[in-house]
Amino acid sequence: MQHRFPPPFRLPRWATHVTRQVGRSLRSDEDRMRFVIELASMNVINRTGGPFAAAVFETRTGRLVSIGVNVVVLTGCSLAHAEMVALANAQHTVRHFDLGAAGIPRHELVTSSEPCAMCFGAIPWSGIRRVLCGARSSDAEAIGFDEGPKPRQWITALKQRGITVVRDLCRREAVAVLQQYKQRGGIIYNAHRES
Amino acid sequence: MQHRFPPPFRLPRWATHVTRQVGRSLRSDEDRMRFVIELASMNVINRTGGPFAAAVFETRTGRLVSIGVNVVVLTGCSLAHAEMVALANAQHTVRHFDLGAAGIPRHELVTSSEPCAMCFGAIPWSGIRRVLCGARSSDAEAIGFDEGPKPRQWITALKQRGITVVRDLCRREAVAVLQQYKQRGGIIYNAHRES
Repeated sequence: MQHRFPPPFRLPRWATHVTRQVGRSLRSDEDRMRFVIELASMNVINRTGGPFAAAVFETRTGRLVSIGVNVVVLTGCSLAHAEMVALANAQHTVRHFDLGAAGIPRHELVTSSEPCAMCFGAIPWSGIRRVLCGARSSDAEAIGFDEGPKPRQWITALKQRGITVVRDLCRREAVAVLQQYKQRGGIIYNAHRES
Repeated sequence: MQHRFPPPFRLPRWATHVTRQVGRSLRSDEDRMRFVIELASMNVINRTGGPFAAAVFETRTGRLVSIGVNVVVLTGCSLAHAEMVALANAQHTVRHFDLGAAGIPRHELVTSSEPCAMCFGAIPWSGIRRVLCGARSSDAEAIGFDEGPKPRQWITALKQRGITVVRDLCRREAVAVLQQYKQRGGIIYNAHRES
């Protein structure tokens, strides 16, 4: 329905071989989450961004539609959180700005850490109907990241819009990647807190 | 500090002559807002997206740094709200993911309508220190748009992070563009509300 522009956010070079896996099916929630946690770890090891990754899957078939990693520093763009990159890439693949449009399969977002205020706000517009989260926001905060001004009742707010949230999926493995990042002295950049 | 990737979101063709104005100074808040409202009107007239526009200025000098219009349908990307496009383009121009970084001038976001939940969440990460709004969210809702799950105390939440919000700047003129869009039968796309 739209012109074929390139996807908004570039992925790091190492991700090229991962994007070749688009179309592959991962059946269980845990398989999908472990795939995403592995991506987050690769982003840390390759020093291409924050310790966060995400992917969009077709819910029923488990078909991988897109991946995203945090490329804020790499691309010089504060919007380039893992979830935003995965959503934009999925919409590029599906060729529609609404992943919940009539006539296309239901889609879900799998993210290695709970979404920040921006990514939370992006979810209802994206057409995603289910969100699977690994680490909690409190885990990301424990290594110094800030989730921003997200409503306390964010899961309820999504539920009211027909979006299901699953938390704590492979949480321990997801937290390990956050700690790996901290141990390697990764940059902790944050929203401003004072004037 | 980062590679020179192209900016994430493409602007419509008609905007090319407007982007040539980057670097120009607009001294007063009202001048900056009228410039943005004119952009929103051009997006309606050219049928290139929703009736929303934004721009980033240097606060002190009024120097125009970037523009953005809603290009969700045009680019097939639900993230491409006017504010997001303007922020990404400003970071591209400044070559930094943080518009509030040390050593660069203070920046402000001027938006024809109050930010939705996603754009609100994006503001603290962007480094913007001041937000000027034309129409209220309730004005956009009056023609059928949805602002998403934004915290009720959003202005306070930004203030706590050192970001000042100015509302109702040229509100009547901003609302006229929303109504122009509705009268022309523009697409009203929204976040999903039910499962």
